[in-house]
Amino acid sequence: MQFDVVGIGNALVDVLSHQDDAFVDGLGLTKGSMTLVDEERAGELYGLMGPAVEMSGGSAANTMVGVASFGGAAQYLSRVRDDQLGTAFRHDLRAAGVGFDVPAATAGPSTGCCLIVVTPDAERTMNTYLGASVHFGPDDVDPSVVLSGKVLYLEGYLFDAPEAQQAFRTAARYANEGGVKVAVTLSDGFCVDRHRDAFLDLIEDHVDLVFANEAEITSLFGVDDFVEAAERVRKHGSIAALTRSAAGSVIVTEDELIEVPARPVAHVEDTTGAGDLYAAGFLAGYSRGLPLHVCGELGSIAAAEVISHLGARPQVSLRELAGDLLA
Amino acid sequence: MQFDVVGIGNALVDVLSHQDDAFVDGLGLTKGSMTLVDEERAGELYGLMGPAVEMSGGSAANTMVGVASFGGAAQYLSRVRDDQLGTAFRHDLRAAGVGFDVPAATAGPSTGCCLIVVTPDAERTMNTYLGASVHFGPDDVDPSVVLSGKVLYLEGYLFDAPEAQQAFRTAARYANEGGVKVAVTLSDGFCVDRHRDAFLDLIEDHVDLVFANEAEITSLFGVDDFVEAAERVRKHGSIAALTRSAAGSVIVTEDELIEVPARPVAHVEDTTGAGDLYAAGFLAGYSRGLPLHVCGELGSIAAAEVISHLGARPQVSLRELAGDLLA
Repeated sequence: MQFDVVGIGNALVDVLSHQDDAFVDGLGLTKGSMTLVDEERAGELYGLMGPAVEMSGGSAANTMVGVASFGGAAQYLSRVRDDQLGTAFRHDLRAAGVGFDVPAATAGPSTGCCLIVVTPDAERTMNTYLGASVHFGPDDVDPSVVLSGKVLYLEGYLFDAPEAQQAFRTAARYANEGGVKVAVTLSDGFCVDRHRDAFLDLIEDHVDLVFANEAEITSLFGVDDFVEAAERVRKHGSIAALTRSAAGSVIVTEDELIEVPARPVAHVEDTTGAGDLYAAGFLAGYSRGLPLHVCGELGSIAAAEVISHLGARPQVSLRELAGDLLA
Repeated sequence: MQFDVVGIGNALVDVLSHQDDAFVDGLGLTKGSMTLVDEERAGELYGLMGPAVEMSGGSAANTMVGVASFGGAAQYLSRVRDDQLGTAFRHDLRAAGVGFDVPAATAGPSTGCCLIVVTPDAERTMNTYLGASVHFGPDDVDPSVVLSGKVLYLEGYLFDAPEAQQAFRTAARYANEGGVKVAVTLSDGFCVDRHRDAFLDLIEDHVDLVFANEAEITSLFGVDDFVEAAERVRKHGSIAALTRSAAGSVIVTEDELIEVPARPVAHVEDTTGAGDLYAAGFLAGYSRGLPLHVCGELGSIAAAEVISHLGARPQVSLRELAGDLLA
């Protein structure tokens, strides 16, 4: 197989601005969450935000960049328009060593963006205008690309786009039939709330590996606490990598429960991309067949790097940070 | 007068990427300089650059943002297209408190960009695609805007755009007639080489205050050293604020020569914008009628802030950094 991981998700350019908590409260936003906005609301929020920095983002795209930074071969499937943001998105993926060969759409909504407010506590609050991503559908899933990977990685956020759920099922079916492992990230507690049944069906039918944080996994199973949610995962038969912020992560399988500590960070600058990069480290190890505790440690390394600076993609070689773990 | 400073210059979005010296050498670029490139060459260079970050830039625009950060009232005149980069440029200026009311062009080249390679020594090497800025001309100079400022600030880089030299003369004439002080920055040694006579004519006829570094001022007068250049400025009658990197700056008038030390910086991250922000501090003081050594010190403060992080605009309040100097 040509690629370690093939990712499918939104194509977004992040627009990051530092603001205080009062700004977040004043706009009625829930700190730490992701809210979908239409073009008009995106324009309104952008007008209120301070001077910004633009960096390519998109959850699964960040993860693919992380996989590549660990030395893995990664490919991405997503939808951009033929505009300046789309050009930047493609450039930054390719410059990071990730394959992205999907032609740009020549009509329809502009390339999506994610307006991110970073508060002084380093927490990020996101407002996503899906743009071109909203039309990602089954026709955008090239079976030869899916079958070129060892692992197919699906971004839960894309569930908000109406045609994308069907695209995920299509892609997952190709993968299952071709012996490609299927991983999914639940992305956001509110996103899980919006699409609980569809997530459960997908996981039940097709998924080998689930990424989630505490809020997402408890929301998925409608249970009160993390232990109960972990039990539910265990019965289900898939592997779950459950992140707990500063408390590290827990990897749950049918017969194991592995606790992995977080890596210490001198100064947390911006938590944007923490989950994406944890998944990158995990997948870099998983696609190489490394033991699960090593996968988790690689996830911790990547997450620690990305929260130590502004932006959701690594700024140094994760391969080098991994040292002997990838020897 | 409504504004402390009215700036005229290029509208550029900076595209910043970290690369090593071999990258700069391999492309035949002169480290630390600015090279003009056409759209094709810009595309070629962008394709070779690593993952990038986009931030609004433009030399005089950066200076206006600095003036605003010192609490000054600033207005900008420039040309953008109605595209995504133009929208970002306008947003970031306004969000920083700088007025920018020029309507976007609906045809012609796209909004300009500056591809900036930052090497490990924090030096920046710039490749500018002027884009929409290339058509800035006399018709873009609104006399009422020029006359609304105490100081008119002209960006030397704009001399590379054919119609802009005429626009500068037009703007400077309005300013001279209306009692508005005229300041110009020489911007770049190669830029001075390309337009020496035009710069000398402009300064001779219209200018009260010149900003330059050592390379630029010696190039302007075709002399060998800084002392000789300073003598030439002195005979000329205008004030010159001459920057010398880590050695600080020297302010030359007909009967004074004031040395101003640079402010120490714990870690120089990226020198992009150092000259722009020195000018911002100087103009913030000059437009308030403060003594020249205070103007220079404000310049040192702003330059020190901007070289301590990636990007050419301040990330904290310069008014607060100035403390008692602006009390």
